[in-house]
Amino acid sequence: MSTDISKVKALTFDVFGTVVDWRSSITQEGTSLGAEKGVEADWTRFADAWRGGYEPAMRRVRTGEHPWTKIDVLHRAILDGLLDEYGLSHLTEDEKDDLNRVWHRLDPWPDAIAGLERMKGGFVIAALSNGNMSMLTNMAKNAGLPWDCILSAELARHYKPDPEVYQTAADLLGLRPDQVMMVAAHGHDLEGARAAGLRTAFVHRPLEFGPDRTIEMPALDTFDLTATDLLDLAAQLGT
Amino acid sequence: MSTDISKVKALTFDVFGTVVDWRSSITQEGTSLGAEKGVEADWTRFADAWRGGYEPAMRRVRTGEHPWTKIDVLHRAILDGLLDEYGLSHLTEDEKDDLNRVWHRLDPWPDAIAGLERMKGGFVIAALSNGNMSMLTNMAKNAGLPWDCILSAELARHYKPDPEVYQTAADLLGLRPDQVMMVAAHGHDLEGARAAGLRTAFVHRPLEFGPDRTIEMPALDTFDLTATDLLDLAAQLGT
Repeated sequence: MSTDISKVKALTFDVFGTVVDWRSSITQEGTSLGAEKGVEADWTRFADAWRGGYEPAMRRVRTGEHPWTKIDVLHRAILDGLLDEYGLSHLTEDEKDDLNRVWHRLDPWPDAIAGLERMKGGFVIAALSNGNMSMLTNMAKNAGLPWDCILSAELARHYKPDPEVYQTAADLLGLRPDQVMMVAAHGHDLEGARAAGLRTAFVHRPLEFGPDRTIEMPALDTFDLTATDLLDLAAQLGT
Repeated sequence: MSTDISKVKALTFDVFGTVVDWRSSITQEGTSLGAEKGVEADWTRFADAWRGGYEPAMRRVRTGEHPWTKIDVLHRAILDGLLDEYGLSHLTEDEKDDLNRVWHRLDPWPDAIAGLERMKGGFVIAALSNGNMSMLTNMAKNAGLPWDCILSAELARHYKPDPEVYQTAADLLGLRPDQVMMVAAHGHDLEGARAAGLRTAFVHRPLEFGPDRTIEMPALDTFDLTATDLLDLAAQLGT
């Protein structure tokens, strides 16, 4: 890919999988909760099942089958469908709500904070996630993610990869789309960004879905940049 | 005022005048520009005139006389009306644009960063300004304002004190209005916030409009809290 990236002034980052390791975080909280409540279950499978409900739920919003709904609400509906199977149906409403907010407390990948700090020295760095604003705000506060600002699909009331999300982000940043680079570990997100005129950087997260599922690096000419992690991306961007 | 403030989880801050000292910042940039270009003028009067055009311009948007327009665009229109009088009409388009972006580079009041850091330890702290998102983002990056997230009238496409701005902020923070406290140096902003159900904290900025214009402290029972600066407010909030 030989697109000119010299005009890029802001980097927008996908968050789940790209910046934070949702699978380990959810598994860990499930394990702690199970120990506390005396419930035995496969908490990795629980994490995968919870995350697995997200794409279909979001698709129903994207197609207009459901009206605009925040991820917090989608997550809760998916969780409610899993409680019986994982021995958690006796949780109080407050406990269920707290468990649902595990998505506000996800841990970053080991390279994420250092990589973001470096890129922050040369660019405006912004979250651009399908997660809602409060989720992203709480997560940044909890994990120490050094965003210059937090943007979300919620501000466009459209989910990625709908073009409205990327267009809204560029507009709010006061930039043309070609001055913004989307950074993500998912090709469909970057393809949506590119269709809206943004530059694209792929970050390889081979362990996002665990060691049993292989995630190949895309061919190097698929996106403007291809990086092994956020420190590698920082270096490629000269920061 | 004896409203219960124990439920407050997030503080939203007015920015111009409350967190940053626009008057000194604009005067200083005007003085530097004047020296560079060999133009003599009263740059404090220039700052006041530029800021003076803001309320009427915003009012035309609030009343619907003009469609939604970002502050960056309003500021530029006001600036264009002042260039002749202040000997700046020979500036290039790039120089005018750079001067207009002085509002992205305003300096904080001396207590602001330390006060915000303290309050950040106990609350989510968010900008909630009529300034547009890119202005607030650039300003925070330049001045080191430690926002957990940046919110703006731009997200509601309404200007404060319209209720939509405060309601949108609470919604994006995932909170009820009574879990959010608006912090501002301006009574009309706090009255708008209160009408939308938020808690209110007044911060006294006697020098916002310079030493010749007196700004009285409101009676102590006017708002939920009344503080002499952001460190005083941090202390009153137990942070």
